[in-house]
This record gives sequence, structure tokens and C-alpha cells, in this order.
Amino acid sequence: MQLDAANLPRLALGTSVLGAGGGGDSALALILALQAVAEHGPVTLVQLSELRADMVVLPCGMVGAPTIAEERIWNGDEGRTLCEAVTGARGQHVDALMPFEIAGANGVLPVMWAARLGLPLLDADGMGRAFPELHQQAMRLAGIPPSPLILTDGRGNTLTLDPADDVWAERLARGALAGLGGVGAAALYCMSGEQARRATIAGSLSLALALGEAMQTDGVRERLRAVCATLGASALIEGRIHDLERRSGGGFARGAATVVGGDGDFQRRVRLEFQSEFLLALEDGAACATVPDLISVLSSDTCAPIGVERLRQGQQVTVIVSPTPAAWRSPAGIAIVGPAAFGYEVEFSALARATADA
Amino acid sequence: MQLDAANLPRLALGTSVLGAGGGGDSALALILALQAVAEHGPVTLVQLSELRADMVVLPCGMVGAPTIAEERIWNGDEGRTLCEAVTGARGQHVDALMPFEIAGANGVLPVMWAARLGLPLLDADGMGRAFPELHQQAMRLAGIPPSPLILTDGRGNTLTLDPADDVWAERLARGALAGLGGVGAAALYCMSGEQARRATIAGSLSLALALGEAMQTDGVRERLRAVCATLGASALIEGRIHDLERRSGGGFARGAATVVGGDGDFQRRVRLEFQSEFLLALEDGAACATVPDLISVLSSDTCAPIGVERLRQGQQVTVIVSPTPAAWRSPAGIAIVGPAAFGYEVEFSALARATADA
Repeated sequence: MQLDAANLPRLALGTSVLGAGGGGDSALALILALQAVAEHGPVTLVQLSELRADMVVLPCGMVGAPTIAEERIWNGDEGRTLCEAVTGARGQHVDALMPFEIAGANGVLPVMWAARLGLPLLDADGMGRAFPELHQQAMRLAGIPPSPLILTDGRGNTLTLDPADDVWAERLARGALAGLGGVGAAALYCMSGEQARRATIAGSLSLALALGEAMQTDGVRERLRAVCATLGASALIEGRIHDLERRSGGGFARGAATVVGGDGDFQRRVRLEFQSEFLLALEDGAACATVPDLISVLSSDTCAPIGVERLRQGQQVTVIVSPTPAAWRSPAGIAIVGPAAFGYEVEFSALARATADA
Repeated sequence: MQLDAANLPRLALGTSVLGAGGGGDSALALILALQAVAEHGPVTLVQLSELRADMVVLPCGMVGAPTIAEERIWNGDEGRTLCEAVTGARGQHVDALMPFEIAGANGVLPVMWAARLGLPLLDADGMGRAFPELHQQAMRLAGIPPSPLILTDGRGNTLTLDPADDVWAERLARGALAGLGGVGAAALYCMSGEQARRATIAGSLSLALALGEAMQTDGVRERLRAVCATLGASALIEGRIHDLERRSGGGFARGAATVVGGDGDFQRRVRLEFQSEFLLALEDGAACATVPDLISVLSSDTCAPIGVERLRQGQQVTVIVSPTPAAWRSPAGIAIVGPAAFGYEVEFSALARATADA
């Protein structure tokens, strides 16, 4: 299958839904990817089953503050710089790129890089959604080392980091980003085709394309139904953003929003806690959905996803919850991306798990 | 010549004077260096003239906040990590180490690393004193690229930076240090023996050893005279620290101290401006000494140097000014380390220059 001008807009639509409130806006990345395929031809999407065992797969994307990244015009050669630095560190040429995060701009930027390099793109990713930290990737669960972790600003500065472990990868990258102006292109968890087959989340780009197609369904009700069907999601509440608290800290957009739905005796209130992404939904003081399941806030008028940065009081929204990929539902997965990993003293929601396993 | 238990204490004494108020305390570095030569044997000090043209010379030291570094116990293998990372990036083995900064702990730590690696140490450095920024090195004047810039915490985290230019080297390193806890071991401006002969400041370790010997002269007056003779320095004022202002900003210890000397009609006031090091001496509103000349504050009681972090009101001090190495007196040198480089709108002091050229 090829990624080209015909289906890239659907890919960008789909990746924006998979952000679960994070991942940043994909609009600029889409323009850059369309330009790259116009100039260099379409990108071949390869399946995990098509990978040769000895191929070198490079997960890549951008890191840093989405609000900065959305204003960042990439020059397009960041992918080449990442590949050259990996080759320098490992002595191997890269055979295929993969988005390390399917959500938002990060699901689309690797298309631009792959087009310009003439490399195929793997139909998989490391998160199956957006997560705030670089080490929250399925490759970590499979024991793939994050090193070499490459960062570049695409303006002549390139950093090759050899972190002590996965958590240090995040710390070093975040520190180094300060020197790069808060945003950069990154590659880490470089692996063989054999490793990629067991270490990644399969079918992420296909899912995003299908989601994008669902998002183009006529009629808002029908569109919501198509999106939920594609994701295996269920609606949690429809209502209005009533309260909105924001607090800055640790480099992440943190806060909470309360959605009030129904009326009279049937009024319900669902509180959404967010840290870059929506992480927790609470009703009557109890968690009704938790990370790593995807909590997404869609505009009730258009079904368009609303990121945490774009939440406003008074918005009429529909909150949906989708099951997280199977890799994250293991005890090892929950340890890395479950509620406790974000400081919430609640269990990974049994309700969401029941939905997911249904 | 060998560096061993007999002369290392003198080296540490001398490097503390060459800090011009900065460079950090060398006490802990001396203990570590003594331990290393006790275990691995003395370190051979090689002269620039003895270098083979194709030898690989690695300038190294520590970077970050001196107040953190003084509490940092190095494990001793940082030098090995730096060399291995350089070999990985350049494909060449390192033949000799060199302190990139002769001042304070940075003049002594490379002795420890050289002893443990069995490598010789070059009798030269990149600054001839202490400077706050990594790119303020003579190798920059000679056009040696700073890349690869290696950083390590000696605890399993190693970063190989490829900065766009010399100034970016400082920015990237300072950003990355945040992730490493504020202090790390660093190597940059790796060069050949042929390059080292024209790109470094010659005789820095010999000068520090001679200074250390001068510091051991009996009698405070005689000691001061010996120190000034070794440095070609002249005394600027003797007096008491009267006012002391400190302000934090940009990661450097900034402030000013006023030294009041003489009495009655002969009272004089000299204001010392500092940013990590003493950079400017002003009397009656005019600069009487400026960076890159070395402005050093010595205790009048012992002749021991007092760093900017250890200045206190009421201390009785003697301020001396020493000529900077010739490389820094060129227009290109003054552009990098002259008063304007630190935001002072004064010319490099003609007085100090006259002294230096005398």
C-alpha cells in the first residue's frame, strides 16, 4: 500500500483522534508530508510480516512542547540527519522508518521523512496513541535498548545520547531539548525487523487511515458511530465543559475539566484529569476510565477531536473511551503507562478493561 | 617530567590561583588524583614539541556549576568513557589528554583520568585560566571544530553532541547538563598533535606547578612577591571587602564587590565585577583591569586565592592582575573573551595590556 496525496489527509485526521487529547496538531505536518510525496513520490507502507529479519527499523518523531512544535516549520532533512547519526553510532544503514507515536503530528511527520529518503514506512508504532514520555513505548516492554537516542534541530545541531536506561532516555532528551529551543526531531529504540515484529504495536497507520475514513462519514451521529466502531470505543458522556482548571508544571500541560451532561434528576458530571493527554475520567468520585485506555474528547457539533490545549469552557463535547492496545494491558505495561505512573492512586479501570476485552 | 604525589599538591595550589575567582575548588580533585597515581603510577607530562603530528589529543574536564561539582565524587572512569565515545565518533584512539581549562579542579581532574588510562598529559590547556563558557578556548581561535562534544555523568549516561558551531556547543552542553543533574565530565575540540602545537595555550601545567611552588614560599609578603613574579602580575589594591552584591541569573554566580584600601585622604575604592570569575576592576568609574587579564583576589593573611563564591564582607584581601596569554590579546581573542563578550561596554584595558606587554 502507498501513502500519497489521496490518503494522507485521512491519515492526519485519524492520528488527531488517536492523540487522546495530546500529540499536537497534525495540520502543518500534513502540508509538509503532502509536499514531500508530491516531490519525491508516494511512501510504501510495509506490514510487520513483510519485514526481513535483518532489516534496520528506525522509530522517529518529534519531541518537545506541542505548542512550540505547531509553529515549527521543519526543513524536511531531519529524517536524513537521524538516519545518518544512527548509522554513525551503530554502523548499520536504516531500511525503514516507523513513527514512534502514531498520534497527532507524530503520525504524519515520518511520512515526510520517508518520502524524502525513499524509505518505506512500517505500519506500526511504539505507543498506539500519545504518551507524554519517550520511554512509554512498547519497545521498552520488549527489552529493546533506547540507545542510541538521536536528537536534532535540523539546523546543524545533532545529539547522540547513550542513556543508562529507558527512564534516563526521557530525562536526557528533555534536558537536551532546552538547548535546542524546546522542540526537536528524535529517533530511538532502533531495532531489527525480527525485533520489530514482537516489539511494536501493529497496524497503527492502517488504524489511523480507517479512523480518518470514519471521520469523513456524512452526518455527525453517523460519524460518531463510525469512529466508535473503528476504535471499539464507547461514549462515556455527552455534555458541556463546565469547569476548566489549568496548571503548569514539569513541562506538561496539566489540569482538569468537568463535563456536565443530561438535565434535572438525570444530570451527570464527569471530571477529566489531563497531563498532556486525558488520563483519568471520574464520576461520583470513582474512576470510570483510566490511562492507558484512550479518553478522547470530540466536538459534539463536528466529531473533531479537541486537544487538552484547545479545551474551552462551554464547548459541547462527547467523551469516548477506547481500549488500549493489548501490550499495555499487561502488568508490565500498566507499570509504565497505568494511572500510578502519572501519580494517580487508582487502579487501571476494570470497566474500560471489560469494554476492551469484550 | 612526571606528575606524582610529590608535586600534585603544588599543581592543585597553582590551578586554584589561575581560576581568577572561578574554576571551583581543587581540593577534592587533588585527593582523587593522588589516589589514582598511587594505584596506577605517575602521569607523564609531555610538551607540545614532543607530540607526534598524528597523535590524537583530547581536551577534557568537568562542566557545570562549581558548587555542585565540589560535592561530586567522581568514580574515575569518566576519562575512559570520554575516550571511548570519541573513538566511536571519530574512529581514532586517544593518545594524550589535556585539561581544557587549567583553573581549579579542571587543572587536576585530567591527571586522575590520565593515570587510570595510562595516558600522558599535555603541558597545555585551552583557556590559560578559567572562563565560564565551553567555547572560550584557544582551539576555537585556531579553527578546530568543537565536535564531537562528549558529556557523561560517569553513571551510565553518555551524550555525543554535534553542535552547529562553537557557541552552539556551549548551548547544547548547558541544556544537556540539566538532564545530568547540573554537572558532568566533558571532552571537546579533539585534535591532532600538529593542531595542538598551534591551537593550545602552552606550558599551563608547568606554570601551575611553578605557581604552587611560589605559594609555598615562607612569609606572606615574600609569597605574594613570588606569586606576582611567577605570573608577571602587579598588585592593584590591598584592602577590605566593603560591599558585596550577589545576583543569580543565566546559571552563573554574578555580582560585584568593592575593596576599600588606604585611609584618610589616600582611601581608594576598587569595584570588582564578577560572573563566575572576576571580569572587571573599576576605580573612580574607569576600568583599571578587564577580562581576559586575570583579576585574582588573594587573602592578605595567607595569599590563598578567594573564589567568587567564597567572598565575604570584611575579608582583608590583595587584588592582583596578571596578563592573559598572548592568544587572547588578538582582536579575535578579545571578541570571544573581552569585556564586551560579557556585556561590559568597556575596552580591553590598555593599562593591563601595557603591563602584559612590558
